[in-house]
Amino acid sequence: MAQLDMQSENGNSQEDTKKEPVEPAGPTALQRARARFLKGVSYFSGDMEVFGKWMKNQFILLQLLDWVLRGAAQVMFVNNPLSGLIIFAGLILQNYWWALNGFVGTLFATISALILKQNRGAIAAGLYGYNGILVGLLMAVFSNRGDWYWWLLLPNIFMSMMCPIVSSALASINSRWDLPVFTLPFNILVCLHMVATGHYNHYFPQVLIEPRSELPNITWAEIDVAKLFMSVPVGIGQVYGCDNPWTGGIFIISLFISSPITCAHAVLGSTVGMVSGLALAAPFGDIYFGLWGYNCVLACIAIGGMFYALTWQVHLLAITCAFFCAYLGSAIANIMSRFGLPACTWPFCLSALTFLLLTTGSKRIFKLPLAQVTYPEKNLASFWKMKKAAKKEKAEKERKDKEETDEKND
Amino acid sequence: MAQLDMQSENGNSQEDTKKEPVEPAGPTALQRARARFLKGVSYFSGDMEVFGKWMKNQFILLQLLDWVLRGAAQVMFVNNPLSGLIIFAGLILQNYWWALNGFVGTLFATISALILKQNRGAIAAGLYGYNGILVGLLMAVFSNRGDWYWWLLLPNIFMSMMCPIVSSALASINSRWDLPVFTLPFNILVCLHMVATGHYNHYFPQVLIEPRSELPNITWAEIDVAKLFMSVPVGIGQVYGCDNPWTGGIFIISLFISSPITCAHAVLGSTVGMVSGLALAAPFGDIYFGLWGYNCVLACIAIGGMFYALTWQVHLLAITCAFFCAYLGSAIANIMSRFGLPACTWPFCLSALTFLLLTTGSKRIFKLPLAQVTYPEKNLASFWKMKKAAKKEKAEKERKDKEETDEKND
Amino acid sequence: MAQLDMQSENGNSQEDTKKEPVEPAGPTALQRARARFLKGVSYFSGDMEVFGKWMKNQFILLQLLDWVLRGAAQVMFVNNPLSGLIIFAGLILQNYWWALNGFVGTLFATISALILKQNRGAIAAGLYGYNGILVGLLMAVFSNRGDWYWWLLLPNIFMSMMCPIVSSALASINSRWDLPVFTLPFNILVCLHMVATGHYNHYFPQVLIEPRSELPNITWAEIDVAKLFMSVPVGIGQVYGCDNPWTGGIFIISLFISSPITCAHAVLGSTVGMVSGLALAAPFGDIYFGLWGYNCVLACIAIGGMFYALTWQVHLLAITCAFFCAYLGSAIANIMSRFGLPACTWPFCLSALTFLLLTTGSKRIFKLPLAQVTYPEKNLASFWKMKKAAKKEKAEKERKDKEETDEKND
Repeated sequence: MAQLDMQSENGNSQEDTKKEPVEPAGPTALQRARARFLKGVSYFSGDMEVFGKWMKNQFILLQLLDWVLRGAAQVMFVNNPLSGLIIFAGLILQNYWWALNGFVGTLFATISALILKQNRGAIAAGLYGYNGILVGLLMAVFSNRGDWYWWLLLPNIFMSMMCPIVSSALASINSRWDLPVFTLPFNILVCLHMVATGHYNHYFPQVLIEPRSELPNITWAEIDVAKLFMSVPVGIGQVYGCDNPWTGGIFIISLFISSPITCAHAVLGSTVGMVSGLALAAPFGDIYFGLWGYNCVLACIAIGGMFYALTWQVHLLAITCAFFCAYLGSAIANIMSRFGLPACTWPFCLSALTFLLLTTGSKRIFKLPLAQVTYPEKNLASFWKMKKAAKKEKAEKERKDKEETDEKND
Repeated sequence: MAQLDMQSENGNSQEDTKKEPVEPAGPTALQRARARFLKGVSYFSGDMEVFGKWMKNQFILLQLLDWVLRGAAQVMFVNNPLSGLIIFAGLILQNYWWALNGFVGTLFATISALILKQNRGAIAAGLYGYNGILVGLLMAVFSNRGDWYWWLLLPNIFMSMMCPIVSSALASINSRWDLPVFTLPFNILVCLHMVATGHYNHYFPQVLIEPRSELPNITWAEIDVAKLFMSVPVGIGQVYGCDNPWTGGIFIISLFISSPITCAHAVLGSTVGMVSGLALAAPFGDIYFGLWGYNCVLACIAIGGMFYALTWQVHLLAITCAFFCAYLGSAIANIMSRFGLPACTWPFCLSALTFLLLTTGSKRIFKLPLAQVTYPEKNLASFWKMKKAAKKEKAEKERKDKEETDEKND
Repeated sequence: MAQLDMQSENGNSQEDTKKEPVEPAGPTALQRARARFLKGVSYFSGDMEVFGKWMKNQFILLQLLDWVLRGAAQVMFVNNPLSGLIIFAGLILQNYWWALNGFVGTLFATISALILKQNRGAIAAGLYGYNGILVGLLMAVFSNRGDWYWWLLLPNIFMSMMCPIVSSALASINSRWDLPVFTLPFNILVCLHMVATGHYNHYFPQVLIEPRSELPNITWAEIDVAKLFMSVPVGIGQVYGCDNPWTGGIFIISLFISSPITCAHAVLGSTVGMVSGLALAAPFGDIYFGLWGYNCVLACIAIGGMFYALTWQVHLLAITCAFFCAYLGSAIANIMSRFGLPACTWPFCLSALTFLLLTTGSKRIFKLPLAQVTYPEKNLASFWKMKKAAKKEKAEKERKDKEETDEKND
C-alpha cells in the first residue's frame, strides 16, 4: 500500500511539473504511457472533479443522485460518487433495510439543505448528506422493532431534514475557529431521538443499553487471533454501524479508489483502536465487534493528511490522536450507557476537534485552511507547492540582496 | 386572532405613513377615529414606551416596581408592565407562596443587577428580572418542604442575586454570535440548587424525580379530549410552573395585550407540543399537565416574529422549531431525570439557539440584529421599512442610470 | 496575616517610589535597613524573577527542574520554584507514591510541551506542568490498586503528555475571551481516565464512588469543633488530593512565601467552603475531609487579586465566588458520582470562568489583561501605577486647558 501511496504522490508531483516550463527533451514512451495511465486514474480517483463538472449540466434528479452518493462517502471524508456507490453496495450486503434507511436519510438531508438554500457547492460535495446517511442507518440499527418497521421512516425523515439546520448552526460556531462540524449533527440528532423515545416506548423503542456493573471475564488464553485480525475491517465497517467484515472490506476498497493515504490511515486507525482495547482490558467481544475501531478510523483519517498536510510529524500526531480517541471512546461509551445511549461518533468528533485546535510552533505541522481542504494527496501537493514558492521567493530575495551589495561594493 | 393581527400590523404601517410626506387630502372622520383608537391602544400595548419614558422621572421605588413587572413579563419576551401585573395576578390565583417567591426572585435579581452596575436600559426593560422570577418560582415549586417554608427564601435570594452574574457571563459568550441568553441563567441556577441539595437533604430537599423504567400504560380509548384541549392553556401556564388552566388563560390575555403575534405563536407552540407528545407515545398525564407545551410555547414565540422578522417562511420555521423543541424536550427530560432534575427550559434554549444560529441564503428569513429586537409587530414594521428603503434606493439608482444613459445618447 | 499583607504592599509601593525622582533628603538608617530587607525578600518571594533570569543560562536539566517546581506551585497560581519545592515536601509527607506520580506527571507534561514546541516562556513559568502534577497525583489517589502499582505509570505518562495538547486546544478557545484554561485539562484527562476504565476493570480499576441514596445522619451535638477548624488547612491540602492537615499547613507556608495576598485568600476560601458545607447540610465527614474547601480555595485566589486587581469590591466578589463555588461543588459532586467520578476541580473552573466573564460598569472591578497577570501584589502595583498615570495625565490636560484659556484671556 505504501508503494501505491508513493505512486500517487508522484502522480501529483508530476502534475506540478507540467505547469512548470516544459523541459527541452521530449518525454519517453514510458513516461507518456504513465502519464496517460495517471490521467485515466484521475477520472475516478480523488474527488472526481471532471465528472462533477460534467454533472452540473445534467438533469436535476441525476445531480441529486450524485450528491447523495458523494454524501454517503463523505462520512469518511471522501468526496467521490464512485466510492459512495461501492459503500451503498457494502450496506446492501449487510442489510437491505438499513441500506434503505441510509438512502432515505441522505436524500432527505440533501433535499432539506436545498429548501433551506444552503451553499450549493457544499451540497454538491455531499457535505449535507453524510450526517443524513448516518442518522438513517443508526436509527434503523438501534431500533428495537426489528427490520421493515415502516413507521420508523417518519422520525428518520424528520431527523434527516433537521441535519442541515443543526449543521448550519454548528458551522456558525465552529467556523470561528476554522473547524469543520464533522459528524456532530448526526451525534446530536441520533442521541436526541434515542433518548427522547428510550427503551420503554410504544412507538419507537430503542435497544436496551446498560452500564457495566461487574468485572468482565477476560481470559487471555481464550483470545481468537483470527477474529482479532478481522476486527480491523469490522472496525471500518462500524463507521456505518455494520459488523460484517466483508462490508468493511468493501469500504476499504472504496477508500482506496479515492485516496490511498485515507485508506492507509483508516486501516492504521482501526488497528490502533484494537490495540487500545486490549491495553485497557476491554471485553474481547467488544473488540471483535469493532466498537474500539470506528472512532479511531475517523480520527486517524481526519488528522492524518485530511485537515493537516501529511508529514512525518503529522503522521505521528494522527497515531497519537487515534490512541487518545480510543481512550475517549471507552470513557464516552461508559457515560452514554447510563442514559441507554451508544457512544456514536462523539469520541472521534471531540478528539479530532481537540487535535485541530492545537497550536504549535512547529512548521512541519501545518493545518490547512478549511476552504482549501480537498483530499490528502491534493492537500499535500498544495502544501509542497506553497513551500516551494516560499523557498523560491526567499532565494530570489537573497540573490537580489547579494547583487545590491555587490553593486555597492563595485 | 388573525384579524386583530392584521389590525395591529395596519396600525404599524399607518405609523410608517405618518413619517412619509403628508398626503394632500385630509383624513376622513373614520380614519381619525381609528387613529385615535390606535393611539390609545399604543399606550398600553407593545412595550409601553410612553409609560416607560414617563417612569424615568419618578421615585426610584416606583421605577423598581416597573422593572419588576416588566421582568415578570419578559419570560415570554414581553416588555410590558401591564402584562407583568396580569401575570402576577395569574400567579396569585395559582398559589400565594409561589407568587411571593417569584416576586422576591425578580426583586433581588434586579437589585443585584443595580449593585453590579449593569446596563441601566437593560435593567429598565426587565432583562435582569425574568431569570429571577423563574428561579424564585421554580425553587418553590420543586421544594419538597411544602409551602410557607420560610428558610427557602435564603437560597432563593442568593440564587436570584447570582442571576445577573451568570447572565452577564453568558452574554459575554453569546454576544459573539449576536445571540440572547434566553433563560439559560435560570436553567443553570435552578438545576444547580436542585442537584446541590437533592432529594435527600435535611434543609432544602427537592421533590423526587426518577427516570422511567417501564412501559407507560397508553390506551387510546381512555383519552380525555377536554383535558387535551385544556392542555393548551396549561402548557402556557407551565412556562411559570403553573398547572391551573385559568392561570394559563390569564397569561394568554397578558400576551394578547402586548402583542397579538406573540399570543398567537404561544397558542400555536402549545398545540404543537401537545401533538408531539401524542406522536411520541408520551403518557397522557404528562400531556394534560402541560409538560410537552411550555418549551414549545417559548421556542415558537422566539422564532416566530421575535428574533426573526415574521414572514411565511419564518412562520413555518417557528413551527418546525416547536416540533424540534418538543422532541428535544422529551430527550432532555429523560436525561435530567437520571439526576433527579426536571427539564426546566433547557429544550427551549437549545432549540431556539440552534434555529437562531442557522444561516441561509433565503432573503425571506431575516434575523434582526439583537439591538433592534423589540416586539414582533414593531420588528415587522422595521423590516418592511428597511425593505421599502432598499427598493426605493434601487429604483432611484436605476432611474439615475437611465437618465445618464439618456443624456449620453442626446 | 493582614499586617504582613500591608507590609508587602508597602514594599511594592516603595519600589514604585524608587522609580520616581529621588527625594532631596537622604534615607535614614532604618529606611535603608528596611529597603535591604525587602530586596532580600524579593529574591525568593513573588515569581523569583531574578532567579528565573539566572536559570536561563544554566544546564537544560537544571532548567527542567526549575520548570517542574514552578509547575507544581502553579496549581495555586504561584510561579515560584521555592514554593514548588516546599509543596513537594508536603506531598512526600503525605505519601511517597503519590509524590512520585505527581513528579512524573509534571516532568512528562513539561517534556511533551517541549516536543510540541509550545511557547518557551509559558513552559518556563510552569504553565504546562501544573495540569501534569494534578493528573499524576489524582490518578494515583483514585486508583483502586493501592500504592506502588507500577503499571499505573503508563497511563500516567500518557495522560500527562496529553496535557499540553488539551491545554493548547482549550487555550485556542478561551483566548477569544482572554480567559485562562485553569485546571480544565486536568479535569478532562483525569475524568477521561477514570470513566474509561471504571471500577470494574482488570488493569486500572478506580475506587468506587456512588451517588447518595438516603438521608445522611447529621446530629449537631456530634460536631467536632477541632476537626472543623482543621478542615481549613485540610481543604487547602485537598487541592493536591492530600488529607493530611500538616501537608495543608506546609502548603499555606509555601503560598505565604510567594504572595501573602494569595495565602490569605486561600485560607478565606477554605473557610467559606466549610461554612457552606454546614449551611447546605453536608455530612460532617465530607467537611472534615476538606471536600468542601479545595474548590473554594482556588476560586477565591483566582478572583481575589490574581486575575482582578484587588480592591474592596473585588475582595467581596471573591467571597461571593467562593460561596457560589461551594454550591456548584456540591452540585457537580452529585452529578459526577452518578458516573463513579469525583468532582475534581470542575466547580472551581466553572465558577471562576463565570466570574471572569462578568462585565460591569464599575471601575473598581478591573480585570487584568491575561498577558499582564503575574501575582496579586505586582498586579495591584501595576493597577495603581496605571491609575496614577491616568490621574496625572488628566491633571496635566486640565492645567494645559487652563493655561490656554488664560493666554487667550490675556
